[in-house]
Amino acid sequence: MSDRPIGSMLLIGVGLVGTSIALAAARAGWQVHLRDRNTSHALVAAGLGAGTRADPDPDLVDLVVVAVPPDHCAQVIAESLAEFPHATVTDVSSVKGALGRHLRGLVPPELAARHVGSHPMAGSHRSGPAAADPDLFVDRTWVITPTPGAPADRVARVRTLAQVCGASVVSMAPDDHDRAVAAVSHLPHLAAVLVANQLNELPSDQLWLAGQGLRDVTRVAAGDPALWVQILSANADAVRPRLQQLRDGAEQLLSDLDDRRRLTGTLSSGVDGTRRIPGKHGRAERAWDEVVVEIPDAPGALARLFADVAATEINIEDMTIEHDQLREVGFLALSIDAERASALRETLEAADWVVRPG
Amino acid sequence: MSDRPIGSMLLIGVGLVGTSIALAAARAGWQVHLRDRNTSHALVAAGLGAGTRADPDPDLVDLVVVAVPPDHCAQVIAESLAEFPHATVTDVSSVKGALGRHLRGLVPPELAARHVGSHPMAGSHRSGPAAADPDLFVDRTWVITPTPGAPADRVARVRTLAQVCGASVVSMAPDDHDRAVAAVSHLPHLAAVLVANQLNELPSDQLWLAGQGLRDVTRVAAGDPALWVQILSANADAVRPRLQQLRDGAEQLLSDLDDRRRLTGTLSSGVDGTRRIPGKHGRAERAWDEVVVEIPDAPGALARLFADVAATEINIEDMTIEHDQLREVGFLALSIDAERASALRETLEAADWVVRPG
Repeated sequence: MSDRPIGSMLLIGVGLVGTSIALAAARAGWQVHLRDRNTSHALVAAGLGAGTRADPDPDLVDLVVVAVPPDHCAQVIAESLAEFPHATVTDVSSVKGALGRHLRGLVPPELAARHVGSHPMAGSHRSGPAAADPDLFVDRTWVITPTPGAPADRVARVRTLAQVCGASVVSMAPDDHDRAVAAVSHLPHLAAVLVANQLNELPSDQLWLAGQGLRDVTRVAAGDPALWVQILSANADAVRPRLQQLRDGAEQLLSDLDDRRRLTGTLSSGVDGTRRIPGKHGRAERAWDEVVVEIPDAPGALARLFADVAATEINIEDMTIEHDQLREVGFLALSIDAERASALRETLEAADWVVRPG
Repeated sequence: MSDRPIGSMLLIGVGLVGTSIALAAARAGWQVHLRDRNTSHALVAAGLGAGTRADPDPDLVDLVVVAVPPDHCAQVIAESLAEFPHATVTDVSSVKGALGRHLRGLVPPELAARHVGSHPMAGSHRSGPAAADPDLFVDRTWVITPTPGAPADRVARVRTLAQVCGASVVSMAPDDHDRAVAAVSHLPHLAAVLVANQLNELPSDQLWLAGQGLRDVTRVAAGDPALWVQILSANADAVRPRLQQLRDGAEQLLSDLDDRRRLTGTLSSGVDGTRRIPGKHGRAERAWDEVVVEIPDAPGALARLFADVAATEINIEDMTIEHDQLREVGFLALSIDAERASALRETLEAADWVVRPG
């Protein structure tokens, strides 16, 4: 958190994201002003403690956060740069390159220099200020996309905002950001939409076969079309090559269906792709360790061993039995969280099981 | 549950699904025998209490459940029909039409008549007997696909098994089942694979922008390629038209990107598709009701109202403020679970708020 308190912050657009940021900033002691064309939303946000609806003194505003829909974002940033002569202006929209180019067409370079784009990577299936949560961004990635030569103090101001919200800051060039979200957000959205579209023609009794897999794949397709059409239009240049790859991939799979070797290759490449996704909240996936226990050749030994393992309440991710060719049973190998491995070894040894050293 | 106890049941293939069925059947008091080419798996399943590894008396076996990979399923069913002369034989594989045709090429009609296909719609990202759970199928759909003229007592036997596992039984013609799973499972899987594939070429810093949406869309793509290649090959005829639609949909979206009206139409149709999916565990989605409270024109009234609403701990799905043109503030409309609406109305009235009658 910054040592110097920010005098005054204006949040324009108190939807889910804007109100969540305002709640986090207000909690950290900032003076937050709220503004929204929808008076009802501003009232709800203020009622939740996100800030005041009173207008700030333009000369005292340090930071303006523009959290309006993509179509209006450049215009509201331009107006804010003019209205608040000393403020750093940021926005939270999901496409950065086209936005910056649009903005530089609206205002002179000396004004545009006070804008530093950002994109907090969090949301909800709900919308509006009532769904806001000051912890929405905790441990999430918050991308900052300063243009080359952006003043360091202005970049630092936006970085401080992200940190106050509990997010992990990543700095990236605007066009790199847009290519990234095309792959990790916009293409997945469109693929989900295409899968969901096919459900419209299905007899309803066939839909009873839907499982968690279908719900997961299509969940994002329930997102607001009015918002998504703005996002996808703004990022069309980066989305287009991804969609072409989806089309070509589907075409390729049509012939792969008759060639098991090629189909296996495509499916395996998909498994590899899922492994590249950082764990939830950006943490690395947990490491596993294997605890190997000898199973005596005695009736009920395996059942007693299972009971002792279960009593530790350590979660067993997988278990296999390794054969000893000379005996009926050999060793039970338990895959568990690496951090719990020595505890499990000690507990089982204390219960007189023969445990292979870790 | 059946009134007449089943004398003896044989479970062939003690992976996740087979062992889970065996655990549920054993818990219900059935005599369960386990068989698997992988001795280690059979030992683990028996050790978990799923049944005995001892061979059953062939004449006493009432029910055989074949839970082996799709490639081997028809062959194992055929062998079981020959080995157990009185048994009803079912299987749990995810493609039914091609399997039935394959089986009828392997055995004479009088043997095939004892086979009743089924497909429990549940799984896990984990595999193997160690991940088994007797409650895996509770409230899940379990499809039974009897061929026309299948003996009613044999269909009833398989229905009983599904009910013992806690599942909801749906009866469907084999080819209808296959068209359904092509749309609700196999196409979503392939779409997830194609999205995941594109992550392989992404610079790793761009992957830090991945959020829950990407994880949801691609989760199923982490599934075992060796299993999925068998499923997709077996159901290629039903999957092909779905893949063609995915390819054509991607092609259409490429031109929709420049046409907001058409793009909005496609996105909206995706929203409609997600609404056709039955709620988790097959239950209908909850109904919402609106509780409307008058907000007095007094300082702090809204904040006090929020506090009183929060104290009820009833989950607020959405809230909006309805304006009264003659006053600054009018009414707060709270969307909540319909079953809690009268409780909320009563609590707020007791706290002297003016609540609109429901």
